[in-house]
Amino acid sequence: MPIPKPTAERLSQLARLLEQRAARSGTISSSEIQQLTGWPSHTIRKDISSLAAAIGASANGAAEPDFSTTSGYDQAKLASAIRKALGFTNEQRKCCIVGLGRLGSAFLEYAGFQGSSFELTAGFDSNVNRVEILKADFPLYPAFKMKEVIQRTGIAYAVLCVPPQQAQGTADRLVECGILGIVNFTPAILSVPHGIEVENVSVIDALGSLTARLAAKKTHERSEQ
Amino acid sequence: MPIPKPTAERLSQLARLLEQRAARSGTISSSEIQQLTGWPSHTIRKDISSLAAAIGASANGAAEPDFSTTSGYDQAKLASAIRKALGFTNEQRKCCIVGLGRLGSAFLEYAGFQGSSFELTAGFDSNVNRVEILKADFPLYPAFKMKEVIQRTGIAYAVLCVPPQQAQGTADRLVECGILGIVNFTPAILSVPHGIEVENVSVIDALGSLTARLAAKKTHERSEQ
Repeated sequence: MPIPKPTAERLSQLARLLEQRAARSGTISSSEIQQLTGWPSHTIRKDISSLAAAIGASANGAAEPDFSTTSGYDQAKLASAIRKALGFTNEQRKCCIVGLGRLGSAFLEYAGFQGSSFELTAGFDSNVNRVEILKADFPLYPAFKMKEVIQRTGIAYAVLCVPPQQAQGTADRLVECGILGIVNFTPAILSVPHGIEVENVSVIDALGSLTARLAAKKTHERSEQ
Repeated sequence: MPIPKPTAERLSQLARLLEQRAARSGTISSSEIQQLTGWPSHTIRKDISSLAAAIGASANGAAEPDFSTTSGYDQAKLASAIRKALGFTNEQRKCCIVGLGRLGSAFLEYAGFQGSSFELTAGFDSNVNRVEILKADFPLYPAFKMKEVIQRTGIAYAVLCVPPQQAQGTADRLVECGILGIVNFTPAILSVPHGIEVENVSVIDALGSLTARLAAKKTHERSEQ
């Protein structure tokens, strides 16, 4: 049974939260998760039960998935069940940053990759000076080396941070290089062949989601009066 | 009838796409939208019909919403219907950037705000030097002026780009200042009071979504063989 997208997003964040917590062992209750995330506890319980259904917890004869205990959820087992259900494997997936302007270069020092399933292994920019000046824990290359580096090192994902007018052309080149997925930080809307996935990340869309949620809440409160 | 979150996200992107197009007038078909976005045309038609239901197109006796024509969708009317259904009004909502490091300062030159419903009107950083050196089309302030500026100018949203260990403390201050919504670019998971909305934007979560979608596609293709 596929997990609905909003559930998958919450579960993915929850796995990240569980992995970030100082006390990684022991259990956590849905009301503790509510305190940490602000999500209603019934939503959390529903998300976690759809997770149990997705990984077929009862397929092996067990009535309950192994992350459920009488005192809450086992944190380590819950995080690992989420990763399994969302198709994450233990292998780290290699990613590159394409475009090392202000936004792209911000990822060179981004702490969030540590402990995640993703590893930044290369950065590319068409400006050779920029590639030479910037410092990173992984190699930075001029853009003309993209194909050779991506294919040789098996990079699967690209984080696209080029200027909007170069976005589609760069995406086309990344697809030619064998990239499977693109996280698109540019405001351009990309067209890619079947089989390649794009995830758009836009501050404007995020502000739009906030506005829609606040408006829905207002309507809901008005209708309850 | 509320619009499901994935539909709302696609519609919000579609409105952005329609507003960005050079030929803003005239009609567009679902297959043209498919070409531009990569979304299947049946999904697009379903999204647009849930939009018609949400704005109550038939409430005024009309069988069809006014953006449907025999040769496709009227682009301007469709964009405006989406904005209405998602609770966007014509008034521009004021936003501020909090934290002007590499990531935060990238927004000072971000083109995506132009023509959107959102306006950047202030930036804040605890480092006074940084505030003085950076250039922007709107004023930048030291962090201690946050409350005064936000309340005086009626800023509704904050884009949070501070270091992760300062994220919760800064979010608490923003809530005290009267902010309604926070777009959280930090890897920290924020807890906010009821009534305030947080939208998390994380490159790791975006990479996670890509992985989940690629894994789902693989499973689907395998089951079809």
